[in-house]
Amino acid sequence: MITSNHNPIKIGIVGYGNLGKGVELAIRQNADMELVAIFTRRNPQDINTSAKTVHIDQITDYKDIIDVMIICGGSSTDLPEQVPYIAQWFNTVDSFDTHAKIPEFFETVNKAAKDHHKLSLISTGWDPGLFSMLRLLGESILPQGETYTFWGKGLSQGHSDAIRRISGVKGGVQYTIPIESALERVRQGENPVLTTAEKHERICYVVAEDGANTATIEHAIKTMPNYFAEYNTTVHFISEEELKANHSAMPHGGKVFRSGITGTDTKQNIEFGLTLESNPEFTSSVLVAFSRAVYKLAQQGQIGAITAYDIPLGALSPKSAEELRKNLL
Amino acid sequence: MITSNHNPIKIGIVGYGNLGKGVELAIRQNADMELVAIFTRRNPQDINTSAKTVHIDQITDYKDIIDVMIICGGSSTDLPEQVPYIAQWFNTVDSFDTHAKIPEFFETVNKAAKDHHKLSLISTGWDPGLFSMLRLLGESILPQGETYTFWGKGLSQGHSDAIRRISGVKGGVQYTIPIESALERVRQGENPVLTTAEKHERICYVVAEDGANTATIEHAIKTMPNYFAEYNTTVHFISEEELKANHSAMPHGGKVFRSGITGTDTKQNIEFGLTLESNPEFTSSVLVAFSRAVYKLAQQGQIGAITAYDIPLGALSPKSAEELRKNLL
Repeated sequence: MITSNHNPIKIGIVGYGNLGKGVELAIRQNADMELVAIFTRRNPQDINTSAKTVHIDQITDYKDIIDVMIICGGSSTDLPEQVPYIAQWFNTVDSFDTHAKIPEFFETVNKAAKDHHKLSLISTGWDPGLFSMLRLLGESILPQGETYTFWGKGLSQGHSDAIRRISGVKGGVQYTIPIESALERVRQGENPVLTTAEKHERICYVVAEDGANTATIEHAIKTMPNYFAEYNTTVHFISEEELKANHSAMPHGGKVFRSGITGTDTKQNIEFGLTLESNPEFTSSVLVAFSRAVYKLAQQGQIGAITAYDIPLGALSPKSAEELRKNLL
Repeated sequence: MITSNHNPIKIGIVGYGNLGKGVELAIRQNADMELVAIFTRRNPQDINTSAKTVHIDQITDYKDIIDVMIICGGSSTDLPEQVPYIAQWFNTVDSFDTHAKIPEFFETVNKAAKDHHKLSLISTGWDPGLFSMLRLLGESILPQGETYTFWGKGLSQGHSDAIRRISGVKGGVQYTIPIESALERVRQGENPVLTTAEKHERICYVVAEDGANTATIEHAIKTMPNYFAEYNTTVHFISEEELKANHSAMPHGGKVFRSGITGTDTKQNIEFGLTLESNPEFTSSVLVAFSRAVYKLAQQGQIGAITAYDIPLGALSPKSAEELRKNLL
């Protein structure tokens, strides 16, 4: 890696769950970056890290020190509240992943960032993020064709988070499973018409609090819009011990296919796939690479909200344009 | 597809070989584009197309009419000569693919385009192009890891072109073949150290002109720098009839892997693959999508030479930023 002669890019982390921890690890792999502090709603002394920890109420003290704030909360309630607020003082990156609410989230963050001359990259990670980029590439290059996104098998952070916010739930995880017969039809070049629900099922393992009504919880999960209502969802209630023993790893992955035709009937296929031993560590690595791009674009004077579609890929790399052309193109 | 309310983007094609023909087909799949004319060094009346054909000597007559010129010559001699010349009057897109000479080509085109306030996207297609983009994504997201590019099995236009320019050669094709044992080691996550030559072999089928010395031709191929000298290359001399019967299709494909580690020892894998029934038709489709981006960026006032690394992906799509965020992100 080429390290820059300039000062390192100064990063702040908001939230120290799995994603925040992953960002901390990812920054160590990037010589051009430096972690300044982790901001938390908890007592900063309770955070088990060698990095500096600061209560989130003090975040504005760092407004002239931190170049990019990576906001690592959940999409259900944390990010819609935190990102527009923090975007008043900092360039930000987040992984807001409630696809249906992205336009609304974009508008809110765009206003906050623009009003305060800051730059906010929203909704990045691997989906939305890398998968979004591949969907766009696929349909732009092969306009006559079909795009397919498959997720899993893997544990979905967003969906697990959504389960855990239901009243009476003590813990829980959700696995997204691609339906094998659907995957096979796409691979065969059949170009079938498939809804998201026809491509995946969702399996939840839930620990209920003592005395909670499991039927009520199951109903709350299965009817939750955007997350579960449209899917074949199975809910299993298990013990806390079983959850810890069998469901602590966070693997994930998925595939984006573009299956198209050029000329009269020439078949062309694009396939992109991820196989991840840790979803949060990989998502964090994406957020860190994109925070470099946010830093560079903000230096150029860009303000407002942007997405992965607005980033020239070269901005993700610590290497110079000359070196990228010479060694990577 | 959303068709624009604006006038269509006006495209010109320079050169009417396989790539130029592919561009003509690809433009028909994009409702926001219009093919104005095909420019040729041949007698325009000899070009078998329903499109308008114009001798290349008249190209400057179109300087106020064509938005983007897609230059479809070969990398050995056509593009280094044509692109800097045409970039004086037109925004351009090309597929210059001699990796080792890209920095020099970039500088020449950059000067021509900048001096005349035009924008030139160089070296796009699928490699360089899509594969370059995936290599950059891979190493930016997973800085601790290895990148692997495999080509084939497929017929390489650039290498076939190089063979056909050798004195005494009447015709010929070159297949790039991934070495299966190398592919398998990468898939197993071994992260082996492999040179390009350790990943691929090259097989050439050549038709010699009457009386040509085949030993001289074979030597010229096997010692050609950048193209063949570094590889295990096999040359077969065949008849013109056999070439036509067995080697007229132009399939290709390949894979880019990034195999990396996050945290302490968490394995993360990114894989991108293409399976193409027609290499030139696919490359053409990439050139057409990128010509849309060149049009948009030129409208914003960008000048000089750029590569796929300088393009925000959203510029490749005919859709608005709002629609992309709503339906694709």
